[in-house]
Amino acid sequence: MTESGKPILYSYFRSSCSWRVRIALALKGIDYETVPINLIKDGGQQFSKDFQALNPMKQVPALKIDGITIHQSLAIIEYLEETRPTPRLLPQDPKKRASVRMISDLIAGGIQPLQNLSVLKQVEEKFQLTWAQNAIISGFNALEQILQSTAGTYCVGDEVTMADLCLVPQVANAERFKVDCTPYPTISSINKRLLVLEAFQVTHPCRQPDTPTELRA
Amino acid sequence: MTESGKPILYSYFRSSCSWRVRIALALKGIDYETVPINLIKDGGQQFSKDFQALNPMKQVPALKIDGITIHQSLAIIEYLEETRPTPRLLPQDPKKRASVRMISDLIAGGIQPLQNLSVLKQVEEKFQLTWAQNAIISGFNALEQILQSTAGTYCVGDEVTMADLCLVPQVANAERFKVDCTPYPTISSINKRLLVLEAFQVTHPCRQPDTPTELRA
Repeated sequence: MTESGKPILYSYFRSSCSWRVRIALALKGIDYETVPINLIKDGGQQFSKDFQALNPMKQVPALKIDGITIHQSLAIIEYLEETRPTPRLLPQDPKKRASVRMISDLIAGGIQPLQNLSVLKQVEEKFQLTWAQNAIISGFNALEQILQSTAGTYCVGDEVTMADLCLVPQVANAERFKVDCTPYPTISSINKRLLVLEAFQVTHPCRQPDTPTELRA
Repeated sequence: MTESGKPILYSYFRSSCSWRVRIALALKGIDYETVPINLIKDGGQQFSKDFQALNPMKQVPALKIDGITIHQSLAIIEYLEETRPTPRLLPQDPKKRASVRMISDLIAGGIQPLQNLSVLKQVEEKFQLTWAQNAIISGFNALEQILQSTAGTYCVGDEVTMADLCLVPQVANAERFKVDCTPYPTISSINKRLLVLEAFQVTHPCRQPDTPTELRA
């Protein structure tokens, strides 16, 4: 927390995991300060000694709040949900909560980790794009099918949930990696409905304190 | 559920994600039936039409329970925790719950997905072992440091939590991939203390219905 008591989010404008947390903070109306961690500059500021002390995994996001530092985006969101329950990001019904967590874990554990920067760096350069696309396509094939039975207006029913916080940043990654999303009409239409909501707009990578001028919108 | 009303776990003896769920079921004393899904035989039984209908991600575990099918091991464990709260696998204090989820996500999202079978298959054969080792070593370097501040007898404090259900199967994977665990004294000693508990023993890969005879113990 800052001296003023505000939570501090260590974030990178383009990080999809950081974006998830930014949306949660926006939806819950939690005022916070951003400390940008540039994953590319200076060989990657996440590798600095100071940041490693905060998050030994050397990844964003990390959130300093209530005297503790939490990393792993879903762990952060679950903490916010438990301590700042309004508006809820998990439905009340345990079966629907299970659907939300299943979709969130599918994206946060089954897609994103395979296409993130640190993994792609280990793949020969000429194969990087295909590698990332494969991870996303294989996950989206499953996700499209799952959403067909869980979705209402959004991923699970008609309220915005943690699953939606994972979906939108992952679709943005799909677009960055030039994945053709036409085979995923359910994913695409939910994404479209979410992108018009204010919490998804103000937290968008093109509107962050560390967004480079040429990418601002 | 079976006709007798028992939950059905779709599991593979060696899958670390299946093992996590088996431990949760054992600790909570939930009687269940196992349907083995052999990830290697017949080109991978997870790719069968029948199994894909259950889990479009084509991964174990999946749990049929209370009329629904849940996949993603942590989503399953959270559901069990919410519907069968005794004994608890998440502490009562939100800050400690955050630690448990942070460690669980670090393993389930930050280590295991990078060293699982389907990913290794995409890596040139001669690099597979190093690839898996790198994922585990990089995760364990962080985990060792985190555990030094959260651990008591187990990963977070003195009670067994969801984090421990992730730790033990991941250490087993580390051993399979010949990772030297001497640089991780905290991880190793917690693992050792957990392995003597009955719930970790009866669910061990060497004692499952689908464990091949030569690997039984």
